[in-house]
Amino acid sequence: MTEINRKAGAIWTGDSRNGTGVISTESRILYEQPYSHESRFDGQNTSQTNPEELIAAAHAAGFSMSLGSTLKKNGYNPMQIETTATIKIVSGNDGNDITSMRLHVRADVPSLDDAALQTLIAEADQHCLVSNLLRKGLDMEIKATLVGAVHDR
Amino acid sequence: MTEINRKAGAIWTGDSRNGTGVISTESRILYEQPYSHESRFDGQNTSQTNPEELIAAAHAAGFSMSLGSTLKKNGYNPMQIETTATIKIVSGNDGNDITSMRLHVRADVPSLDDAALQTLIAEADQHCLVSNLLRKGLDMEIKATLVGAVHDR
Repeated sequence: MTEINRKAGAIWTGDSRNGTGVISTESRILYEQPYSHESRFDGQNTSQTNPEELIAAAHAAGFSMSLGSTLKKNGYNPMQIETTATIKIVSGNDGNDITSMRLHVRADVPSLDDAALQTLIAEADQHCLVSNLLRKGLDMEIKATLVGAVHDR
Repeated sequence: MTEINRKAGAIWTGDSRNGTGVISTESRILYEQPYSHESRFDGQNTSQTNPEELIAAAHAAGFSMSLGSTLKKNGYNPMQIETTATIKIVSGNDGNDITSMRLHVRADVPSLDDAALQTLIAEADQHCLVSNLLRKGLDMEIKATLVGAVHDR
């Protein structure tokens, strides 16, 4: 049994409405990418990233890989698998909530018919780490430390 | 009540071990970013992105913003909030599983003491969209379509 840890971080300055933040990942594919209240909660704004599109990206990527593996295991040689992921945020008086993820998978697989595809999609879903995470959650631990100028306190 | 949809996509070519993929988000912050089995499951490889670091990035970003908002609501003016997120994948004979997320929050907030910080961290966690998602999951729907050269089938 082996363990892999992957890391990312974000720095937020200011309060929610007027604040701005930057997001970075361990691979540096994201490096101090700006995000804001507007880029997150104004549905028309797609100029900056936001946490939800990153979760959608993770699911699309994880599912495509999982289906490739499942097809191979069942004797098929996939040419290409394209998955689009749409994640929904519902905003109401009680606040905001992420309510659903819809995946649309377009699979180019020689000798595969639709019935077999649907069976293998269900199998890939059971093996997909991100599907499983979004179904059952995970253990969460939050540690918090005060930093900064002590004389201000 | 309003709804926002955020989108992302991935294209995978080949089977799992030898395949390669690319990830894109609606904002184009990620645009055809490569990922692979190695960049995902070789813990030493941090040269390419992977689904897990994107989920960690989403949680770090969402939590920092949520804490900023919670502090403001409680009368504090945060200078800076930095959150690092570590997500763990455990690999065993039964496959791979995402098991935990650890956040470490470093908050620079004038006039805030540690006891108040810990209380407000718990409040921010209850309002954080990503924390809630990772605690309770979401509705998932997967639609799959065959594409490509029909003469191959």
